[in-house]
Amino acid sequence: MNLKMVGKYLAYLLLAEALFLIPSAVAAVVYGEMHALAAFLYTVCACLALGGGLYVLCRKESAAMYPREGFVVAGVGWLLLSALGALPFVFSGDIPHYVDALFETVSGFTTTGASILSNVEALSHGMIFWRSFTHWLGGIGVLAFILALVRARGGSGFTLHLLRAESPGPQVDKIMPKTREGVRVLFIIYFGFSALNLLFLLAGGMPLFDALCTMFGTAGTGGFGIKNDSLASYSPYLQTVTTVFMALFGVNFTLYYLVARRQWRGALRDEELRLYLGIMLLSVLGVAASLYFSGTGDLAYSFHHGAFATSSIMTTTGYATTDFNLWPEFCRSLVLVLMIGGAMAGSTAGGFKMVRILILLKSVKIGLHRLLHPRSVKKLQINGKSMDEAVIARNNLFLVVYCFIVVTVFLLLSLDRMTMESDLSATLSCFNNVGPGLGAVGPAGNYGLYSPFSKLVLTLAMLLGRLEIFPILLLASPSTWRRKT
Amino acid sequence: MNLKMVGKYLAYLLLAEALFLIPSAVAAVVYGEMHALAAFLYTVCACLALGGGLYVLCRKESAAMYPREGFVVAGVGWLLLSALGALPFVFSGDIPHYVDALFETVSGFTTTGASILSNVEALSHGMIFWRSFTHWLGGIGVLAFILALVRARGGSGFTLHLLRAESPGPQVDKIMPKTREGVRVLFIIYFGFSALNLLFLLAGGMPLFDALCTMFGTAGTGGFGIKNDSLASYSPYLQTVTTVFMALFGVNFTLYYLVARRQWRGALRDEELRLYLGIMLLSVLGVAASLYFSGTGDLAYSFHHGAFATSSIMTTTGYATTDFNLWPEFCRSLVLVLMIGGAMAGSTAGGFKMVRILILLKSVKIGLHRLLHPRSVKKLQINGKSMDEAVIARNNLFLVVYCFIVVTVFLLLSLDRMTMESDLSATLSCFNNVGPGLGAVGPAGNYGLYSPFSKLVLTLAMLLGRLEIFPILLLASPSTWRRKT
Repeated sequence: MNLKMVGKYLAYLLLAEALFLIPSAVAAVVYGEMHALAAFLYTVCACLALGGGLYVLCRKESAAMYPREGFVVAGVGWLLLSALGALPFVFSGDIPHYVDALFETVSGFTTTGASILSNVEALSHGMIFWRSFTHWLGGIGVLAFILALVRARGGSGFTLHLLRAESPGPQVDKIMPKTREGVRVLFIIYFGFSALNLLFLLAGGMPLFDALCTMFGTAGTGGFGIKNDSLASYSPYLQTVTTVFMALFGVNFTLYYLVARRQWRGALRDEELRLYLGIMLLSVLGVAASLYFSGTGDLAYSFHHGAFATSSIMTTTGYATTDFNLWPEFCRSLVLVLMIGGAMAGSTAGGFKMVRILILLKSVKIGLHRLLHPRSVKKLQINGKSMDEAVIARNNLFLVVYCFIVVTVFLLLSLDRMTMESDLSATLSCFNNVGPGLGAVGPAGNYGLYSPFSKLVLTLAMLLGRLEIFPILLLASPSTWRRKT
Repeated sequence: MNLKMVGKYLAYLLLAEALFLIPSAVAAVVYGEMHALAAFLYTVCACLALGGGLYVLCRKESAAMYPREGFVVAGVGWLLLSALGALPFVFSGDIPHYVDALFETVSGFTTTGASILSNVEALSHGMIFWRSFTHWLGGIGVLAFILALVRARGGSGFTLHLLRAESPGPQVDKIMPKTREGVRVLFIIYFGFSALNLLFLLAGGMPLFDALCTMFGTAGTGGFGIKNDSLASYSPYLQTVTTVFMALFGVNFTLYYLVARRQWRGALRDEELRLYLGIMLLSVLGVAASLYFSGTGDLAYSFHHGAFATSSIMTTTGYATTDFNLWPEFCRSLVLVLMIGGAMAGSTAGGFKMVRILILLKSVKIGLHRLLHPRSVKKLQINGKSMDEAVIARNNLFLVVYCFIVVTVFLLLSLDRMTMESDLSATLSCFNNVGPGLGAVGPAGNYGLYSPFSKLVLTLAMLLGRLEIFPILLLASPSTWRRKT
């Protein structure tokens, strides 16, 4: 482990966080909230002091890099960023307990959107802005931001390790190489769609502050609402705009890159995209049918809210236009299952990712074939290309670890004596970075009822989910920290 | 597909079932239940007619055999056996609806023990005997019985395919080859432990009829109670005997074979055994602590009932001494999780099996190592022997298909508008061949509240679980039925 090299990147990260706090401080000034401004400035100072000190200590290091340095920067980096990002809430007194503030901040950066607040509207504007802004930062990946800002001395190898540790999805696709150039293209797409989303919201008469915060949550597929009823009190137009943009931000960004290069056919033939849209369409129809035939609402209600909820859950955003916890059992169960799937790899969404499910489905088909024909040499293909055995093995590993984590978190939460439904949905919702669950943590509830221990468990689950398990898991392994021999 | 060869084995199966019905008919005679006797005799006639006819048609076939014939005999055989085994319940009028009778019979043969009956004690003795006896038959594997009875012309290759399709667990272990000799040894162990269990129950003053039925459910890890309160009204001695024997029947039978050959060391060093006993010990302590500290009962209550429930759930038996659905949330969640794990491969228990979990745990360790050291060539070892890549791949395949089935069954059940807790626990309990679940299907409830559609879904889930998915799944694949080219 090259600790100094890790230290240097953590220093960049802390200095960047100081920068990230500025827009929220500006919001505090605009709304004349001096206590919020002070809280932001204290935190900026903390980031500058810590980051500056670390930079002075480690700046001269520029050694060769290995995968584990990438994992450690990602794992420790996200922890550190969240630990400091929670301070404004505590300093301002808006969220007095640190564990609560940490939960809320991790929920923000990981684009989960789970909240311990029962009354969001009581927060100052500055804090609401910061809370939503963390979604936007977390969506694209904070490390990616930094790589775009500083010139990585380690060369493209290190850049690759770093981004691989942070970016969602198995590396199936090499359309857009994960280099600094690739990152720049991603940024342009992310900024572009964010701006477009903002314009559509403003066109529907949403106030600028609301539109900005709502866009942050949509683009990052986070889902922190700025009203207690999430998006329920906004107009059907604004809700529909959000339905569409959530779904758009759930698409693999490399496909937009292909479209921009006029390779329409390649984009539309993408098997993961087809699975994503197919499941979404089926789910909307299923939810709408269930709502309509159970008499929950008329046809317009069923499709409007069914589409919103499906898009919101599948993209792991978590906005709500109505309390889906009160919907028929089939809808509730489907919501729980859709949480697991998530959207496409290479998007801002969390969850298991469609491409992983695609690989699993295809491996089942091949596996069944092999049971009957043991000598078969059929290979797993995606988009016409044979998959590397290592990618398939890593995909299986992901499923195994995923299952173990779900079981562990679920058991730990059950020590709290809530209901099984709340525990299970809280586990799946936080781990998949969705936000709301069912029962006590449904759209009308919040995570404040859980004990501090459970909140810490869920905080860890959100980080495990956002970083796709391994960077966090490897932090706990002694061999990660061993010096190179 | 060699249909005639399949037909021949199905004929054996049906003729054997006629034989299996005799003891229950005798019980009906002993208790003077003429309507039950008649129901059994009608069914015997049906089995003889169908089986005899099939035998005459197919008896001359003795071609070479392939894996798919083994899968088809297992899949169709179990379906056929259950379809006919349900008839006595319908003919006698004890379970008037065929779907209910089929559910109960499949639950019996698959050693699940899930019941649609709200009042078991209303059944005639003959029917109660048949219901419990199916557990005992299902435990050892009905096909294994037949192989012990008839001389397989296909040679040991076919025997292997047939037993592989029916027997639980991945083929890790070749201590006891799966041949007719191996089957004989299994029988001796199974009969021996059954007799021992019976003696212990009789010694505690349990009436012969009760002792036989309880032993059938214990040996097969089935769990049909013959009282409405399962085993709650029997003495603590009888409950403790059952706790111990359930745990014993959850051990891989090949280990007893090793012990009989005085290879103690090999048996005790078995890694799967250690995992099984380790999880059991931890779970008993966890449940007991939870019961004690929550004030549910005193120390004796906590350990007695905690040990019983743990042994019952882990071995997928499903007997109950108390309504664990009313226990603290942690106990209930643990029960749900333990259902998944099951006991050891090569035992009569259902579930995921300890050895599979062992393989998964070890593959995680190796997988994490490979993330840091991509060129590592570490191999997965169990009991000091390297595992074949094909076994690991099949294990992964099992997990994937397992997850898909759980999700599918859960969603289908949710159409019924019960609670999520009931749906999820019913799914896991039936698929893992446990029996009782939580909520409406807890030890004090039953599956009678579900719709006929849901009952059929759960019936299929029980069969998928008992045959470890693939034989049933392959029945649905067109390529299974294709003629050899």
